[in-house]
Amino acid sequence: MGDIPRSHPRYNSLMGRKLLTEAAADGLLAASALIAHGRGEAFDYLLGEQTCSAARQAIKEAANRLLNAENPVISLNGNAVALAADDLIRCAAVVGCPVEINIYYRTPERMAALLKRLAERKESVAQGEAPEGWSVQHEKRLGDWRAAVEAVEILGEDPDGRIPGLEGPRANCCQNGILGADVVLVPLEDGDRCEALVAMEKQLLVIDLNPMSRTAKTATVTIVDELMRCSPLLLTDLLDGTPNQTEKWENDVNLASCISVMLDSLPQ
Amino acid sequence: MGDIPRSHPRYNSLMGRKLLTEAAADGLLAASALIAHGRGEAFDYLLGEQTCSAARQAIKEAANRLLNAENPVISLNGNAVALAADDLIRCAAVVGCPVEINIYYRTPERMAALLKRLAERKESVAQGEAPEGWSVQHEKRLGDWRAAVEAVEILGEDPDGRIPGLEGPRANCCQNGILGADVVLVPLEDGDRCEALVAMEKQLLVIDLNPMSRTAKTATVTIVDELMRCSPLLLTDLLDGTPNQTEKWENDVNLASCISVMLDSLPQ
Repeated sequence: MGDIPRSHPRYNSLMGRKLLTEAAADGLLAASALIAHGRGEAFDYLLGEQTCSAARQAIKEAANRLLNAENPVISLNGNAVALAADDLIRCAAVVGCPVEINIYYRTPERMAALLKRLAERKESVAQGEAPEGWSVQHEKRLGDWRAAVEAVEILGEDPDGRIPGLEGPRANCCQNGILGADVVLVPLEDGDRCEALVAMEKQLLVIDLNPMSRTAKTATVTIVDELMRCSPLLLTDLLDGTPNQTEKWENDVNLASCISVMLDSLPQ
Repeated sequence: MGDIPRSHPRYNSLMGRKLLTEAAADGLLAASALIAHGRGEAFDYLLGEQTCSAARQAIKEAANRLLNAENPVISLNGNAVALAADDLIRCAAVVGCPVEINIYYRTPERMAALLKRLAERKESVAQGEAPEGWSVQHEKRLGDWRAAVEAVEILGEDPDGRIPGLEGPRANCCQNGILGADVVLVPLEDGDRCEALVAMEKQLLVIDLNPMSRTAKTATVTIVDELMRCSPLLLTDLLDGTPNQTEKWENDVNLASCISVMLDSLPQ
């Protein structure tokens, strides 16, 4: 695929496809990751490839919960790294939390490729400008932008714990990451792992384009949105950082709103 | 992926994913083919992973048109070969028509891999048993099963024509295949090529899980169904071969029926 002009009406979707196929060629992804991306594309098509207002609320709620957590962590898989590594590292810098690589089809080659890619992106983000909204208040808490980014630990290379009730390598995780966390942000999670983490009484904040998936229905907060599109919005809300006093988060009500956007997009 | 038991409720879907990832590893597919498959999976999820009655009618209509064509042809891309080579070769044998490989991202390596795979599958199908429904009437017209299969020409290696109005290698095709055909069955077609072929006044019979795609809306007959599931049904209808005297085929009405099945599957 060649360069995609910013002005293209489907820029985000085409860029996502380009990033994914390049990441596959670089050995960052399992083959099934491309299939999963395509499933997401179809649901995003039904959303009109826009962040709906229910998703916008879910992003705010997720930001609140990350900022109020004791031990938050951002879990990353191959697709998340390919599509939104920079913004998710920025989010971790603002929250002051680690990121942890956790992949379904774990091979030493893929783990090495992902760790290398994340380390490169972290360095690039650290050297880049602070995002809009970064303020003196943030500097007081986290140091300057560069220091805040450099403080983001990248976990996942040496898992020292296991998620109870899960089999296989996807159960492996880090005590000072996912295993010890009270709030986990997981873009693109698998259903079994989501259920196992919720069973551990963690708050699961997930990003999933299919509002009917097991993950979407199991999570504490489900952001039904495309990852490249919602990551900068999450970053904005994290930087904004004024806790939004919602009485109670009703995830099923939010999911129903997302489904009705999809219903409206289908010709009646 | 390991073996999938036939009894698994999602056998077809999991088997499709397995066949596709294996075909990708064998060099039969472009990376974007896996993404396209995933998009199809999402729409099939909305269909309940079943052939709906509107799709069943479209399959019958497609069979009719293939049997009544003067120069029919079955166009195949990488996904079609990976998922349903055997049944589509059987269909071509019953129709007595060639198959033509036509792929979007044409490279000599992929063409060679696809031609080799198809030749192997054709030989295996020829040596196998005749399908249920194969009768003396068929033998009179086509010879015995083995002869009928061996008569199926595999085109696409040396394209000697171009589809007007299309740029790039996907315009290349064969005079005694797609270019000279009056009826073309195309599983999983791209929108531009579908429009260009319809502009040549050919009948396009397509298989596409997205009833809102440009291909689905442009084609003469659109089968909104999964390829592995509908290919044996098409074969049955071709063997059945009693022309179904539909007055007039209204493709948009059929598409609307498929969309309403999807609407009904979304929680209201």
